Amino acid sequence: MRWARFDDYGTPRHAIVEGDRLLPVRGSPFGAWERTGETRALAEAKLLIPVVPPTFYACGLNYAEHVRQVAERVGQSPNLPDKPDVGYRANNSLIAHGETIVIPADATDAVQYEAELVVVIGKRAKHLTRENALDCVLGYTIGNDVSERTWQKGDRTLWRAKNTDTFAPMGPWIETDVDLDALTTTVRLNGREVISFATNHMIFGVVDFLVAMTRYCTLVPGDVLWMGTEGAAEKMRHGDVCEIEISGIGTLSNPVVREGAA
Amino acid sequence: MRWARFDDYGTPRHAIVEGDRLLPVRGSPFGAWERTGETRALAEAKLLIPVVPPTFYACGLNYAEHVRQVAERVGQSPNLPDKPDVGYRANNSLIAHGETIVIPADATDAVQYEAELVVVIGKRAKHLTRENALDCVLGYTIGNDVSERTWQKGDRTLWRAKNTDTFAPMGPWIETDVDLDALTTTVRLNGREVISFATNHMIFGVVDFLVAMTRYCTLVPGDVLWMGTEGAAEKMRHGDVCEIEISGIGTLSNPVVREGAA
Repeated sequence: MRWARFDDYGTPRHAIVEGDRLLPVRGSPFGAWERTGETRALAEAKLLIPVVPPTFYACGLNYAEHVRQVAERVGQSPNLPDKPDVGYRANNSLIAHGETIVIPADATDAVQYEAELVVVIGKRAKHLTRENALDCVLGYTIGNDVSERTWQKGDRTLWRAKNTDTFAPMGPWIETDVDLDALTTTVRLNGREVISFATNHMIFGVVDFLVAMTRYCTLVPGDVLWMGTEGAAEKMRHGDVCEIEISGIGTLSNPVVREGAA
Repeated sequence: MRWARFDDYGTPRHAIVEGDRLLPVRGSPFGAWERTGETRALAEAKLLIPVVPPTFYACGLNYAEHVRQVAERVGQSPNLPDKPDVGYRANNSLIAHGETIVIPADATDAVQYEAELVVVIGKRAKHLTRENALDCVLGYTIGNDVSERTWQKGDRTLWRAKNTDTFAPMGPWIETDVDLDALTTTVRLNGREVISFATNHMIFGVVDFLVAMTRYCTLVPGDVLWMGTEGAAEKMRHGDVCEIEISGIGTLSNPVVREGAA
């Protein structure tokens, strides 16, 4: 099942996606819901981010080749994480499928995509085990962890490098029926494929993170966990369109503009 | 004016604090509100965290003596930040005035308080200037940034060191009429004063952070910004009560228990 969230003349509503139709529901997939009998054309709907997360978790370094690329960029030797230490991102940076990534006028040209699987939590959870960890997951969506590499290197935290407004496209919807091992992530810049990787070839997997996190932290419905990205990235420039496809989930597509560019 | 949030038989409601009374309102201080004519005894009310923040910002190293103490603890030379790079904390860690800080069974005994001024945002804001920055502030409350120092030193991020459930007491309420330069922060452990410092003697002040952050990030009503702490801290142990007073705002008091302790 696919869960979208759309703008119904100013009111955010949840809807099931079936083919090219949206089926709006009363309620939400994070609680009780029922079908309304309404239908909308998906192509005409303004999609919103599929959830506004109470907490926005992000894994950071979680694919081996990406860790090597990051180490090379900052001039250090690669250091694979030895345990799943999660990090955080901020909601101000979230935008929906189709919305515009805006590069601030004073950013350098080193602004890159990072294609990520996003885990969406459906149930309150603490002290999860490897056996029951995935029971708290509603489904999966796609994230683009847009990163300004100069700020990422020079600031004490990642606040503006990764949390500038519009730097976290997420969507287009939440897919509940997913075989993690079957997924492939593909990034296209202006239609040209720039990377493709096995989504689940992570250093620490979804279960690893959920078990480790919930030893200390309570997850709540709507929390999202971005699982990190693989490889090196290219720069995104004014006028580009960045598409991230995860097979079986969908495609997250966002145009890029530079503030003040003609 | 003081804004509390309390549990009205299962429903969170906002109320004005006047003396020893709560005056519940319809609406919230983050939007439209009106008095209802109801009153409650403050002493009998179950206070909640005064706001559930959309984003929970935290300044980290923002007082000179604290930076020196942290550097000494991790065996590095102190390095004062040269610009206001903000960080993040997570909502799962928030608890209200009077609620219990629970130290996990497998934490070390190096669990410490950090007394912080908390800025509460009242209005959507971007591109603030030094002149208008404080216009977006609804008021101020108090935070205790509880920290497990061994985890803080050894983990790649601060996720469990500072974001374990119950590690972020915040309250008791939001005070809207504050003279930042007149504030004194005092911490008492079991009634004994352990530190007292001029709250506004920060490396970067509230205006510095708001201007820097909103160059790239939109603040929204309810966002909170924890301003960091001064000095070194003592350990909190099972059975302790930690009180943080900021003159003119109030006192945040929380008992401490260790999970599994008799």
